[in-house]
Amino acid sequence: MDYQKILNTIEEDLKYYEAYGKVASYIPELAKIDRRKFGMHLYGVDSKHAAFGDSTEKFSIQSISKVFTLTMAMKLLGEDLWNRVDVEPSGDPFNSLSQLEYERGIPRNPFINSGALVIADILVSNLNDPKRELLDFVRKISNNSNIDYDNILAASEKSIGFRNYALVNYMKALGNIKNDVETIVDFYFFQCSLAMSCEELSRAFMVYANNGSILQTGENLFSRSKIKRINALMQTCGFYDEAGEFSFKVGLPGKSGVGGGIVAIHPSQYSVAVWSPILNAKGNSELGMAALEKLTTLSGLSIF
Amino acid sequence: MDYQKILNTIEEDLKYYEAYGKVASYIPELAKIDRRKFGMHLYGVDSKHAAFGDSTEKFSIQSISKVFTLTMAMKLLGEDLWNRVDVEPSGDPFNSLSQLEYERGIPRNPFINSGALVIADILVSNLNDPKRELLDFVRKISNNSNIDYDNILAASEKSIGFRNYALVNYMKALGNIKNDVETIVDFYFFQCSLAMSCEELSRAFMVYANNGSILQTGENLFSRSKIKRINALMQTCGFYDEAGEFSFKVGLPGKSGVGGGIVAIHPSQYSVAVWSPILNAKGNSELGMAALEKLTTLSGLSIF
Amino acid sequence: MDYQKILNTIEEDLKYYEAYGKVASYIPELAKIDRRKFGMHLYGVDSKHAAFGDSTEKFSIQSISKVFTLTMAMKLLGEDLWNRVDVEPSGDPFNSLSQLEYERGIPRNPFINSGALVIADILVSNLNDPKRELLDFVRKISNNSNIDYDNILAASEKSIGFRNYALVNYMKALGNIKNDVETIVDFYFFQCSLAMSCEELSRAFMVYANNGSILQTGENLFSRSKIKRINALMQTCGFYDEAGEFSFKVGLPGKSGVGGGIVAIHPSQYSVAVWSPILNAKGNSELGMAALEKLTTLSGLSIF
Amino acid sequence: MDYQKILNTIEEDLKYYEAYGKVASYIPELAKIDRRKFGMHLYGVDSKHAAFGDSTEKFSIQSISKVFTLTMAMKLLGEDLWNRVDVEPSGDPFNSLSQLEYERGIPRNPFINSGALVIADILVSNLNDPKRELLDFVRKISNNSNIDYDNILAASEKSIGFRNYALVNYMKALGNIKNDVETIVDFYFFQCSLAMSCEELSRAFMVYANNGSILQTGENLFSRSKIKRINALMQTCGFYDEAGEFSFKVGLPGKSGVGGGIVAIHPSQYSVAVWSPILNAKGNSELGMAALEKLTTLSGLSIF
Repeated sequence: MDYQKILNTIEEDLKYYEAYGKVASYIPELAKIDRRKFGMHLYGVDSKHAAFGDSTEKFSIQSISKVFTLTMAMKLLGEDLWNRVDVEPSGDPFNSLSQLEYERGIPRNPFINSGALVIADILVSNLNDPKRELLDFVRKISNNSNIDYDNILAASEKSIGFRNYALVNYMKALGNIKNDVETIVDFYFFQCSLAMSCEELSRAFMVYANNGSILQTGENLFSRSKIKRINALMQTCGFYDEAGEFSFKVGLPGKSGVGGGIVAIHPSQYSVAVWSPILNAKGNSELGMAALEKLTTLSGLSIF
Repeated sequence: MDYQKILNTIEEDLKYYEAYGKVASYIPELAKIDRRKFGMHLYGVDSKHAAFGDSTEKFSIQSISKVFTLTMAMKLLGEDLWNRVDVEPSGDPFNSLSQLEYERGIPRNPFINSGALVIADILVSNLNDPKRELLDFVRKISNNSNIDYDNILAASEKSIGFRNYALVNYMKALGNIKNDVETIVDFYFFQCSLAMSCEELSRAFMVYANNGSILQTGENLFSRSKIKRINALMQTCGFYDEAGEFSFKVGLPGKSGVGGGIVAIHPSQYSVAVWSPILNAKGNSELGMAALEKLTTLSGLSIF
Repeated sequence: MDYQKILNTIEEDLKYYEAYGKVASYIPELAKIDRRKFGMHLYGVDSKHAAFGDSTEKFSIQSISKVFTLTMAMKLLGEDLWNRVDVEPSGDPFNSLSQLEYERGIPRNPFINSGALVIADILVSNLNDPKRELLDFVRKISNNSNIDYDNILAASEKSIGFRNYALVNYMKALGNIKNDVETIVDFYFFQCSLAMSCEELSRAFMVYANNGSILQTGENLFSRSKIKRINALMQTCGFYDEAGEFSFKVGLPGKSGVGGGIVAIHPSQYSVAVWSPILNAKGNSELGMAALEKLTTLSGLSIF
Repeated sequence: MDYQKILNTIEEDLKYYEAYGKVASYIPELAKIDRRKFGMHLYGVDSKHAAFGDSTEKFSIQSISKVFTLTMAMKLLGEDLWNRVDVEPSGDPFNSLSQLEYERGIPRNPFINSGALVIADILVSNLNDPKRELLDFVRKISNNSNIDYDNILAASEKSIGFRNYALVNYMKALGNIKNDVETIVDFYFFQCSLAMSCEELSRAFMVYANNGSILQTGENLFSRSKIKRINALMQTCGFYDEAGEFSFKVGLPGKSGVGGGIVAIHPSQYSVAVWSPILNAKGNSELGMAALEKLTTLSGLSIF
């Protein structure tokens, strides 16, 4: 399939798309991003690439990082992980304390904030230098040593991250956080601050499209079974309260971030990343969603 | 792939499986089913069949019927349907009134009871003889005129169906039910009473595995796009509060019923139905879940 | 104390009060009431009366009737009553299904709709002719045979009373309704349709201000202890989600109805009723609330 | 009335009362209190005292302190206070985050933890030395300079006060906390650590029973209107999720603390404090509730 041609059509079609959403504005660093930024990069299992726009510009991947930390935690804990966090979609907004209260401190899945904070707690408990090792992990699966945290952004987010402090304190009261609050929140905002371009993201996520192996080297990092499960989680829980909508319209496992990035994979076909900082009412990239919907429509391919 | 061999292994492995759940007991007709019943039938797009156990014995399909009525409603209303019901997974139990209240009368998806009741309301508004036409539809996609309602079961369920009366009345108060309450509830319990065997169910669901065409005749009934979306909905919403778990462990779109039936499809590969009346705590067939998990493990195939 | 003088001041002060609320409009019979209606009647334990405005015009007492049915149910069941309904204020709007779900079918108090419907169920179970006996009861404590139901209003409300049907069906599913749904809802709308004037209401409620005895005859109907408890319930639960506000500003036990009536009592001092059909956002009479606040401010008397 | 005789009867009646609850155990300092402690002190507006048991032993007043801080905040802010906190009873447990989420950061009343933390924020914003000034206030209304904080208890509670940290962080995210989190939580646990005996508490609360004036000196500190409102709040919100029950059975405004203390007042009659550290399932002193119920039954006096 000629993916470059499809991406060209997407770029053309969405050029004048009126995006009504807003750029994430709660921290100055995110708010000052140019709202016209728009890029996409697709990486096929046949090693071909297709791209357009600002596809090589780095941006803050935010919640997309939750897929990386989950993968690490699954490797560390195996099945025991699921005593600390569930695998069910959340019917409530991503920062819902109500649901957490109802579920007695067990987050519904690892991709809502509470779940990612429990994952962070697990990494902090089990790794010597969690920040370093997360970075090593991402560089490894990306085959790219040029990926790093944005320390200033991390500090800025942390200084106003009261909701996440509330979540960690609440789960600590309920016994599902083992380390001290400050350490967890600090690690969490570092992971969110990872700066990557669409190209880099699609390379990193190829491991999920390629059954757990790095495409370039053939090195197998994760079992098919683990990858299958992470992909299933991205399918049902990757888009907060819009997971059903994304599954319904796009039909691929994926994960979005409040920085405007979305990554999706078609198992054994490709991984793809798209970036536009304008968010819809549910906190997902408006153009990103539209671009991916066009991709599966034009290619005639979804997992269903 | 030799599916019969895989099914034989599943039968063998689960023969002495201790199922801890209970048979649905709220109506005498369901409660008196022999809890040892267990059958499975797989129908491949290569027209081959594999089966074991009580695979030709009819049982009450209950909520599996929601897939049929949704398909009919999508054909009748097109995109307008989604103003009446959403496509998001439900984070609460299947009969939750709380969520409905929070969402102001718009059910989160067509597979929770409130959603199916709205779908029933749509069919009653748009069809001359909804019961007849639903039966015609199921017989047509099954290529089998020997499928029918269980009138006694329908009447029995209706006589104690207070939760569903509550849901319809509540949505009527909020403006999302147009017809009279009695008609909707009556139709709903009839659809739930449809009696089908695993074999019949797997034949009926082949249309969803086969891109909207009847396999035997090649007749195309639904666009690929409609089928893709129904499959996506089964993936994210087909198992009430256990949709994530099923997706995570099995990795196929599917739908369960409180009668103990589960149907699942692997697009362009097969449709499969399994039946065991013992339910787990979340209301899904315990052995059915285990059997399907084994199926995707043994076949090495999931959509992810 | 010269209550007539105080009532004159209230009338004068509120003459040009701009009430912003709406008349209850969900049924034609209530919607067509003249929004300028305004009357008040105070009945002292010294047998003196004070009044102004439309104080002798009958209106639909609606939820005020819940005090009468509760009193009857307490007489019939004694302490057993509290296994069926709780005595706690409700933190949610008066028709909340969520709360009922959370509490597993036990309404938080007898003055929210679900609670009053359970009380109705109790009366239907224990009385031969509940409508007749309720009417007898109200006529007796009012010493007035000229009080009756508004049959047309009752039928009209019932025809659109979907929320109450939902509540009864839901509680029946949870086992807290013993009789058939239709009978309960029918009785409930009859009790709500009772038509009484401010004068009649203040006479009826004198029994609660006068320690359970009819003032005119001295006949004791209820123990002090029962009356004390009913008054406590009016204090904490009489105004739906505005009970705290009323207690805070007025400081008297009372009960409001969606017809615009409010009744309040000062134990061993007086009973008072006020009527203005314009409702505030929480469903209580806007002028009625203001009038009663002025009453306790001007008289310098509250129970606190 | 001979209150000493009534208290003697209460002591006698409850001597062998089997209290089934537990002593608050979440902090060692509270857990090690002897569960057999039991004392009561009543202070009449006629300046007479009645008492029994451990009535002069100091204990941690915990949430009873919320009445003092509310009184100070009302003096500082007047009506503006009610933009920050509501006056409605809470239908949920005292530390409910769900309700706070639903109400968008405005606590339902000043006596649930979130409300008291907002009050703490107000005092921190408006006072130079809040801890000092709160102590001065309590000593003043008690006419007793021998009242102080328990610094060790305060530090101990703070070290595990994750729920309160969660509440403050959450409200800060929603804009209803102005100062830094640490300062608020620190102040809050100091106020809770105030150590007072039943005698001291009944003296302190006489100002609420005596229309805002210190009984011994006649000095008027607060307007009748303010006192009336605080008393109304104690009536509807003083006992968490058991406020209705207390109002129903006791019929007096009051406030409980998790240290096992309860204080109640009968306006223009008396103030009374009781202490027993065994708590019922809703977190209120089991014997304390029983003792106060007996008090109003035996004296035949409630506000209703």
